[in-house]
Amino acid sequence: MADDALFQENERTAPSNEGRQSVSIGDLPLRSGDVLTDVRVAFQTFGQLSSEKDNAILVCHALSGDANCAQWWERLVGPGKAIDTDRFFVVGTNALGGCQGTTGPASTASDGKAYGSRFPSVTVEDMVSAQDRVRQHLGIEKWALVTGGSMGGMQALEWAIQFPERVERVWMTASAARHSAMQIGFNEAARQAIRRDPGFMGGDYPLDTQPSGGLAVARMIGHLSYLSEDAFQAKFGRERREDGVLQVASYLSYQGEKFTHRFDANSLLVLSQAIDDYDPTHFSSVQASFLLTSFTSDWLYPSWQSVDLLRELRVCGARAEWHEIDLPYGHDAFLLDGEQQGSLVREFLRY
Amino acid sequence: MADDALFQENERTAPSNEGRQSVSIGDLPLRSGDVLTDVRVAFQTFGQLSSEKDNAILVCHALSGDANCAQWWERLVGPGKAIDTDRFFVVGTNALGGCQGTTGPASTASDGKAYGSRFPSVTVEDMVSAQDRVRQHLGIEKWALVTGGSMGGMQALEWAIQFPERVERVWMTASAARHSAMQIGFNEAARQAIRRDPGFMGGDYPLDTQPSGGLAVARMIGHLSYLSEDAFQAKFGRERREDGVLQVASYLSYQGEKFTHRFDANSLLVLSQAIDDYDPTHFSSVQASFLLTSFTSDWLYPSWQSVDLLRELRVCGARAEWHEIDLPYGHDAFLLDGEQQGSLVREFLRY
Repeated sequence: MADDALFQENERTAPSNEGRQSVSIGDLPLRSGDVLTDVRVAFQTFGQLSSEKDNAILVCHALSGDANCAQWWERLVGPGKAIDTDRFFVVGTNALGGCQGTTGPASTASDGKAYGSRFPSVTVEDMVSAQDRVRQHLGIEKWALVTGGSMGGMQALEWAIQFPERVERVWMTASAARHSAMQIGFNEAARQAIRRDPGFMGGDYPLDTQPSGGLAVARMIGHLSYLSEDAFQAKFGRERREDGVLQVASYLSYQGEKFTHRFDANSLLVLSQAIDDYDPTHFSSVQASFLLTSFTSDWLYPSWQSVDLLRELRVCGARAEWHEIDLPYGHDAFLLDGEQQGSLVREFLRY
Repeated sequence: MADDALFQENERTAPSNEGRQSVSIGDLPLRSGDVLTDVRVAFQTFGQLSSEKDNAILVCHALSGDANCAQWWERLVGPGKAIDTDRFFVVGTNALGGCQGTTGPASTASDGKAYGSRFPSVTVEDMVSAQDRVRQHLGIEKWALVTGGSMGGMQALEWAIQFPERVERVWMTASAARHSAMQIGFNEAARQAIRRDPGFMGGDYPLDTQPSGGLAVARMIGHLSYLSEDAFQAKFGRERREDGVLQVASYLSYQGEKFTHRFDANSLLVLSQAIDDYDPTHFSSVQASFLLTSFTSDWLYPSWQSVDLLRELRVCGARAEWHEIDLPYGHDAFLLDGEQQGSLVREFLRY
């Protein structure tokens, strides 16, 4: 390991809702044809919007993140960081369908009960439509940058497609325009772990009990895909606890269990299906400049996906650059690396 | 894809117990100190033992295989194949702790009930001890070859360590001397999927109901690790069924479901724990010659593990060679490739 980043807390381990706000954005028509009524979006802001309103940055979270991007992306977002909250007005939102303050399956429907199985399918396009209402609420004309890793990167891409005139720059990291069969496979195994838990009850489980066994296993499957083989080996090897349990087994079990106390199983189904289904085909509307970064050890979102997107963007005349970062952490590198990503994004933002 | 091997049936999809025999091997002392009483081992033989008894080959199966090696390894075992049953007396056994005829957790204990949670931990060393009783039963002095892939390779290695005088040659393919943290992680997630299924009932479930949801998810986790990313992409891409379900999701779900009808959940726990715990340290007793093969696209049992073992064997003075085979199928390559493995093993057997 190049450093001890693997052993520090990050988005995977320590979310928080401190400082969270929310806004009612009314009814939201969805791509499916359904209308989601009375939608709220949780958001959080850092820094000050300039009088020219030209310093706003939107940070989109990955599958299990939240609006508090200064916390889960603390290596990149904050005073003096690459996404400098002394210089920029940084906005994080919780994704539509999530469970950290934005309307999702665990939210209360008009009949006073949780949506549960009644929550409609949402798409990455819908997530961005909801975020645009927050943009309007905050009085922002154009984002200087929309960014995110993994699922967040897909939202950033969709912003440039759906609202070309609202986005100056896009930075996608450890992300892809669309999922490969293997990525879908990992998500499907996670979804099946939830659905096959008898506690799932077709999606209409009591919120305080959850299909927690299935949700824990789903999270373990996720964690298996977030680290590289080298990172697993460096972090755990074949070490055992005093009681003989292999440390890696203990770690996965702990992460799985902990997740059940902060995340809604239906949200995992909705969000993971949305990113599996995302498959943009028309990039010709894009006006933003793109920075794409990927990591040598990220086998979940391998570099070829960024290279493919680079080609698609350039064919459509978009300005785009791609940088591969050599770090051993696997997919989690986008959360763990402040330095190399930071230097690239500073240059991209030209300051 | 080099050919359509990925689209054919193989061990993962079509096991069989046709032609299976079994032998009672009495009480078996285990490495744990427990004694497993009245043990039976299922086996199957192909070809004829020569009068010199010098043509016997033992084939050890992987996690979900069985004694019928001419079926699950049909590209390598059979008349005229590299492991030629016209020339060799080929023996397959079902591993101790398994559920295809050898004593395992689903077997009936002395009280007339299934062992279930009472089944003791078994080790790779114990599996080999049980197989040695079958060797005695068949009147074989020395194996011309002990071979296997994945878990089967570990047993082959253990044969050379535990019974050096009984083994002329060992061929391990897509295997390792010991599991990495990532391999353990995949197995642990699979075990947790079973244990967290309420139908598991602490291991004492009725055999006709099983914790089938958890077992299906465990199998899906396995399948995710058996194919390479390229193989997943070539086989499924983003194709959908007529009803809109992504093909890769449909495939994993089908494989998971099917597995529950032929495999015992407790067996998966016992066997996967045995291979996670296996960690041989003394190779100095080894007399056999070793052939190690690994595959460029096998990220579950990557080549570095074979290279490490090659070094360990040579340091102890053992004859050992290693060949890396360039095929895109992932870990399943050891089941799908007859040609390149076949040519190497023919040469290794010198015929």
